[in-house]
Amino acid sequence: MATATATSPHYVRIAENLIGQMERGVLRAGDRAPSLRRLSEQQRVSVTTALQSYMWLEDRGYLEARARSGFFVRQPFASEIPEPRFEPGSVRATTPGVGDIMQDVFKMANDPAAVGFGPGYSSPELFPARRLNLNLRRIIHRDPLHSSRYDSPPGCEPLRRQIARRLSGTGPGVSLSDVVITDGALEAVSLGLRAAAKPGDAIAVESPAYFGTLANIASQGMKIVEIPTHPQEGMDLNELEHAIRKHRIKACVTMPNCHNPLGYVLPDRHKRELAELTGRANVVVIEDDVHGDLTFDGIRPRTVKSFDKKGLVILCSSFSKTLPPGYRVGWIVAGRFREEVERLKFVTTVASNSLGPRVVADFLESGGYDRHLKRLRTAIASQTERVRQAIARYFPAGTRISRPAGGHLLWVELPPKTDSLKLYQAALAERITILPGPVFSCGNRYTNYIRINCGHTWSEVYERALLKLGRLAGEARG
Amino acid sequence: MATATATSPHYVRIAENLIGQMERGVLRAGDRAPSLRRLSEQQRVSVTTALQSYMWLEDRGYLEARARSGFFVRQPFASEIPEPRFEPGSVRATTPGVGDIMQDVFKMANDPAAVGFGPGYSSPELFPARRLNLNLRRIIHRDPLHSSRYDSPPGCEPLRRQIARRLSGTGPGVSLSDVVITDGALEAVSLGLRAAAKPGDAIAVESPAYFGTLANIASQGMKIVEIPTHPQEGMDLNELEHAIRKHRIKACVTMPNCHNPLGYVLPDRHKRELAELTGRANVVVIEDDVHGDLTFDGIRPRTVKSFDKKGLVILCSSFSKTLPPGYRVGWIVAGRFREEVERLKFVTTVASNSLGPRVVADFLESGGYDRHLKRLRTAIASQTERVRQAIARYFPAGTRISRPAGGHLLWVELPPKTDSLKLYQAALAERITILPGPVFSCGNRYTNYIRINCGHTWSEVYERALLKLGRLAGEARG
Repeated sequence: MATATATSPHYVRIAENLIGQMERGVLRAGDRAPSLRRLSEQQRVSVTTALQSYMWLEDRGYLEARARSGFFVRQPFASEIPEPRFEPGSVRATTPGVGDIMQDVFKMANDPAAVGFGPGYSSPELFPARRLNLNLRRIIHRDPLHSSRYDSPPGCEPLRRQIARRLSGTGPGVSLSDVVITDGALEAVSLGLRAAAKPGDAIAVESPAYFGTLANIASQGMKIVEIPTHPQEGMDLNELEHAIRKHRIKACVTMPNCHNPLGYVLPDRHKRELAELTGRANVVVIEDDVHGDLTFDGIRPRTVKSFDKKGLVILCSSFSKTLPPGYRVGWIVAGRFREEVERLKFVTTVASNSLGPRVVADFLESGGYDRHLKRLRTAIASQTERVRQAIARYFPAGTRISRPAGGHLLWVELPPKTDSLKLYQAALAERITILPGPVFSCGNRYTNYIRINCGHTWSEVYERALLKLGRLAGEARG
Repeated sequence: MATATATSPHYVRIAENLIGQMERGVLRAGDRAPSLRRLSEQQRVSVTTALQSYMWLEDRGYLEARARSGFFVRQPFASEIPEPRFEPGSVRATTPGVGDIMQDVFKMANDPAAVGFGPGYSSPELFPARRLNLNLRRIIHRDPLHSSRYDSPPGCEPLRRQIARRLSGTGPGVSLSDVVITDGALEAVSLGLRAAAKPGDAIAVESPAYFGTLANIASQGMKIVEIPTHPQEGMDLNELEHAIRKHRIKACVTMPNCHNPLGYVLPDRHKRELAELTGRANVVVIEDDVHGDLTFDGIRPRTVKSFDKKGLVILCSSFSKTLPPGYRVGWIVAGRFREEVERLKFVTTVASNSLGPRVVADFLESGGYDRHLKRLRTAIASQTERVRQAIARYFPAGTRISRPAGGHLLWVELPPKTDSLKLYQAALAERITILPGPVFSCGNRYTNYIRINCGHTWSEVYERALLKLGRLAGEARG
């Protein structure tokens, strides 16, 4: 498990130990887990700690609690499904032309009859719309002139204060003046790139990587260098070091927490190594932490930024994966590039919209965000597990599925000769969207991979769609 | 008057004629204007047309209506104040470093104790906040999940429909699929530039030009070529033609309606010539029409886009000058670059915020926008005239002031040796913001010019601030 580190709480380590027993077949589906008293004796911990372990496992879908009977192992195990393989591959510099696939997919997202496994977002009912609307009404009532000024960079002060407060828990202190509000995380990454690099510069990215990042880098006339990336251990740092010298890498865009599409949380020692390696070479790290609040184990993972000693890590995130994305509220902490980022934001859009950041700030101030996150994580973990199981059931033999540590995305490796672009087209004809693997690279890679979004509340509709998708996958031969 | 053309309505031509009489001293301050009956006989028009002429002149501050006494000439005449001179100058290609002035100015804009003549916006009370808040509440009530999806490009359909409908009045038909929603006009210009040109390309601009445009072009690594611009006739088209050959201009950013900072509305024949000249040379025109709805005479001027035969004109605008700017609602009609603009918008911010465009669309659908525009134009025309008169009264001898055809910006030429950067600093120390001339160019021009925003509802505060500013201007010697 990539998430278990020396710094994890005791109950997580106990839980991980139990997962190990499930994986080795010591505990099987349907088995009753040891009683709380038994576990506390075995592990020499309090009953409370034992209960925490079980609740953690329940959250992740490993156990289910039955009234007055205790905890039982759920079936089938997540671990019975093989994960996609690591394909070392070579480092190449390419200038890509990411197509219109994402736009097709997003357009269909607004078609109520379509089933969307394409865009990476969650069902509306998972967001606290009522609370946010209450905040919105309150702002309108108390400050009828709420939108009458340009909220110019760095933007909404109450929100910057809340973000700085939350960040202080995951690393060295960040003050509110370090934070600049943006229109979502991708704009933050875009501004970070513009501040740190010029057209023609080489930018290192994970492979596979989020298509939006790839397309943004390309649109700025920068070169993309894809670094082979392990499904659990992240970027191959030796290859990165080599590429820094060979391609004179200027900046590196990375998603260490709940990677899109791979799903891993990078172990802390890798984060530290990445910060040190790039720090030595004066390479800027642009860290996309957009899913960082969505780890299934509920532990807020550290950021690469928290290991940054030189101000060379630019941390980017947003509330678009945890709150309604239409508010378009993101942010950037840009280290030594802060002033330049602020200036670039100003000369590109003058300001972000005034309402969205205030609504989010009010929600954070009220303390409702953490409670909401807990519910959201639990829901997403369970949905993701259901989708994994349906894929395991309906997809052709030889299919491998990622085991994400958080977020709501699955990376699915189909049997070798499957053509995921054909599958994408065939699914689109049935009004089912997926994202084909090749959009996650510029080098015509991942032709037999797809990404599946699990943000939707589970229903029969999704079950049937996955059944159909599995059948289409069997037919989509290259 | 730049606004009077062969296509102007009859009543405007009559009014212009009367202004001529005022300028020649035939009609003096305090004089009673001819009665409506008399005017209608003189000009051989209906009494209604005569009344339209007088209302037009009243809107612009030339006449005042007194109950039961008729119309009187107001004093002092706008026309007694000399306008800034045209400085032909040379065409130069420069790569600028626009400083932090604009950010200082915008930050002070949120300081209630400061008097802001810097940023170009209007008093909150001039916007229909109550109506917009009503729309906002209605959206929240009818669609509580309003923000739960990415409103991906081209964005909000009802708003695109309204924009297309409005545009059809000013030129060849535009369909809703031609419109892409943006976060304000500057983002629209930025996207247009990215679609039409590459880093290193040469971009022609007016001189002086809006500082945001200059800074945006520079931030994209493009070269800026400043074309001498006449205070009424716009860009010198011979110089532009010459520059297109000499500097291989790729695109031209222009603001033909209520130019920022000069204030002119370009005559139609110049717009046509500009479209033809650039069309022949395959130069893309990026037309910033952000003040186009704010002409004092209430006539919606044509756009360069309306003369575009080749799809080479990219029309950009927003509602940030006519509705509360914090909503951040702009748009772009990009001709043959539509798909590329849509793609660039997507890969930069994924989507615009969902609420702002819906609120604006509802307002436009209800028909309230035109009535609002009428009130806003009248208020702004009168405020602008008051500021002009105060400047004429308090500023050093030799000061010249633009006579804008719309918008709320004045371009003020101070006596030759005045250092407007010194004046900017001295004013800032007194918590008065202005914009110094040099930010409107990249070539250290306009050192004795300032731009004054007149968007605020007139009050004693502004009168006193202009008195102080005038004194400081006398002391700010280079």
